[in-house]
Amino acid sequence: MRIALLLTGDELMSGDTVDSNSAYIAQSLKDLGMTPRIKKVVGDDLELLTDSITELSSASDVLIVNGGLGPTVDDLTALALSKATGSNLTRNEAAMAHLSAWAEPRGFVVTESNLKQADLPEICEIVDNPVGSAVGFRCVWQNCMIICTPGVPNEFKKMVEGQVLPLIKSHAGIKETIKITRLRLFGITESGLQDIVNEKFPDWPKEIELGFRVQMPVIEVKLTSRGGQFDYLNDHWTEKFSNLFSDYVIGANGTRLTQALNKALAKSNKKIVTAESCTGGSIASGIVSEAGSSHVFDGAFVVYSNAMKQSVLDVPSSIIDEYGAVSEQVVLAMAKGALEKSDADMAISISGIAGPEGGTPEKPVGTVWMAWGEKDSLKARRFFLPMPRLAFQRTAASIAMDLVRRELLKLSTDIDYFSELKRKPKHIS
Amino acid sequence: MRIALLLTGDELMSGDTVDSNSAYIAQSLKDLGMTPRIKKVVGDDLELLTDSITELSSASDVLIVNGGLGPTVDDLTALALSKATGSNLTRNEAAMAHLSAWAEPRGFVVTESNLKQADLPEICEIVDNPVGSAVGFRCVWQNCMIICTPGVPNEFKKMVEGQVLPLIKSHAGIKETIKITRLRLFGITESGLQDIVNEKFPDWPKEIELGFRVQMPVIEVKLTSRGGQFDYLNDHWTEKFSNLFSDYVIGANGTRLTQALNKALAKSNKKIVTAESCTGGSIASGIVSEAGSSHVFDGAFVVYSNAMKQSVLDVPSSIIDEYGAVSEQVVLAMAKGALEKSDADMAISISGIAGPEGGTPEKPVGTVWMAWGEKDSLKARRFFLPMPRLAFQRTAASIAMDLVRRELLKLSTDIDYFSELKRKPKHIS
Repeated sequence: MRIALLLTGDELMSGDTVDSNSAYIAQSLKDLGMTPRIKKVVGDDLELLTDSITELSSASDVLIVNGGLGPTVDDLTALALSKATGSNLTRNEAAMAHLSAWAEPRGFVVTESNLKQADLPEICEIVDNPVGSAVGFRCVWQNCMIICTPGVPNEFKKMVEGQVLPLIKSHAGIKETIKITRLRLFGITESGLQDIVNEKFPDWPKEIELGFRVQMPVIEVKLTSRGGQFDYLNDHWTEKFSNLFSDYVIGANGTRLTQALNKALAKSNKKIVTAESCTGGSIASGIVSEAGSSHVFDGAFVVYSNAMKQSVLDVPSSIIDEYGAVSEQVVLAMAKGALEKSDADMAISISGIAGPEGGTPEKPVGTVWMAWGEKDSLKARRFFLPMPRLAFQRTAASIAMDLVRRELLKLSTDIDYFSELKRKPKHIS
Repeated sequence: MRIALLLTGDELMSGDTVDSNSAYIAQSLKDLGMTPRIKKVVGDDLELLTDSITELSSASDVLIVNGGLGPTVDDLTALALSKATGSNLTRNEAAMAHLSAWAEPRGFVVTESNLKQADLPEICEIVDNPVGSAVGFRCVWQNCMIICTPGVPNEFKKMVEGQVLPLIKSHAGIKETIKITRLRLFGITESGLQDIVNEKFPDWPKEIELGFRVQMPVIEVKLTSRGGQFDYLNDHWTEKFSNLFSDYVIGANGTRLTQALNKALAKSNKKIVTAESCTGGSIASGIVSEAGSSHVFDGAFVVYSNAMKQSVLDVPSSIIDEYGAVSEQVVLAMAKGALEKSDADMAISISGIAGPEGGTPEKPVGTVWMAWGEKDSLKARRFFLPMPRLAFQRTAASIAMDLVRRELLKLSTDIDYFSELKRKPKHIS
């Protein structure tokens, strides 16, 4: 299947909008085992748009046009398709009905300029838009299926899922079912994951396609099988994969690390308090970004200055003087203090050197101590995360959340996070 | 000037990488008064790449090719350009010298596959790459200037600034100087800004191009003048604009809101403490995301539960019972408590209903109270930000930071933030 994309809009050419629609359709097509062959982007220019439709459709089996469906004069897709195919624009009854049905319950009046959205090339049928005023439309011309879709990302996504993919499957004669399992992992790099898969699963079956995609700070793993007869194999290898990487799997499709942490807390019926220095409250704000966090989160103490560590969390000045603010002793005292000053069951504390200033030969920038656990079972670990300030803060906060998640689920907290960091080889790229 | 972009790379077609390079070049070209006319993206496919170079160069004055300069077999740009132009690949001495000069101090050995990066079409000259191993290269073919650039974003950006833009200016015969002034504003919408400009500056001179670009949570405003003779006019209108919007201007090119806040604190020689409920520490983590924050930030109390509001910040339970946790009285007590429990000079406190649960008819989701100021001059305000949870938290935290910035700079804190929110008209889009 030769698939082409054609995007239109001045805002795409000027760089004012970063196009996310084409990455979305490409990822969706991947699930069908397809990749777009070519993509073209043009401004709101009738001649260029018409020529591009002619050119791309003549060398493709499917052409997806995105954008230019709105009511204004710079929305030219229907007109360009009419010119390219020589099929006259006429008022499309189904499009008209959609427009009325969409506008009425919302209290809108269908204006003359809206009516333009119902004027489509005669050879076209509409493609339903469940969430917007502009319907899509499609035709087959010179053996190429041309599908015109709206530029608004959420309308485009719904149309891709509900209409465009089924149309492409049917045009390509794909009858087989496709089963996709998605898992989300934290704490391991893409290449680390690939190395372990190669080593531990030399017999990985060719019927199960394995794909990785980094979605910071997690990695999404996708197991795809085509044709219903391999669904059992997909389940079987998903289980084997999950078992091997059980430490790293935080959940299924779309799971965020903050969600996984809050879920583990809720399941254990425990509330957490954080005591943060170098992360400045980003662990807490991560937890609170999830709805329902009041059931698992009590509060946080951001003790950035040494004076606050002492006055708010009762960290003895003697241990700050003796061991320094970035030390095992201090993070343990911070966690202890946070538990005493709140009703939380668990604490996570963190103190490190985010940089760019403040490093020493013994404690360079990137050094960070964390302590976590319940009152009588606090643990501490040191990490070294030599990264720019913001990346350091995000990575440290993510590791802290994962340590608590692991502790709650009784998984090892002694794992080698992002071991890649240490062993990345030098190479010219 | 007809400018075309050609991007190459399987990772762009698969959607694994979202292309940011073309938005970058488009924004840079805008400074020259130019917009790319067409953009094409293809995978690592020699024939498609060759044909695309032929097609785009024949209909353009400038063709910028991006990607495919690396040492591996799927890096095909030089070969495709050689085929398209009929100019043989030969070892380019300047490219060779760059490669050696780049590799040696880094302790790399130039391998056979690296040498490929020095094999360029005979008609090409190199384009310097100050930060990477792969040089760019360029030629003029059939009156089109073709410039091949690396796909790695930071290498591409440096090359655009240092080499590509000057080449395009010279190819286009642009001799004039261009003066660009950039300002960053917070608290006003793009359309609100445009309305006020239209009303207050009916005499805005056509020689000064005014552009807006939303870079959440701020808006970047750009004043461009071409030809040295209008530089005085640029300065003059920048001053008029700055004066009219003085409340909203947080700084010049690239200024972040967190930076503006920290700068205002440092200038006033004051330290801040935050007392946060619904934002869960995101004001604090924003402040700490900036280097040097220890000079202006003491710490934060994230008092999410009512119990913590009482036990940590001494908020009387009676006022929580009487007025509710989201009330003027409670945020004032939170700010007062935070000042008492720290050495900070100023406090910002916040309590609101982030949703999706927890709203009531009197206090719907989106209601938020903030208090700020020094011990004897605390002020409080209520806002209504009916948005999804995350947007609510981000917007509320940003407004809180801006209130403190304004207080420190003795600007009004009684402004109508994002007044657009209230008066957005209903329309079909």
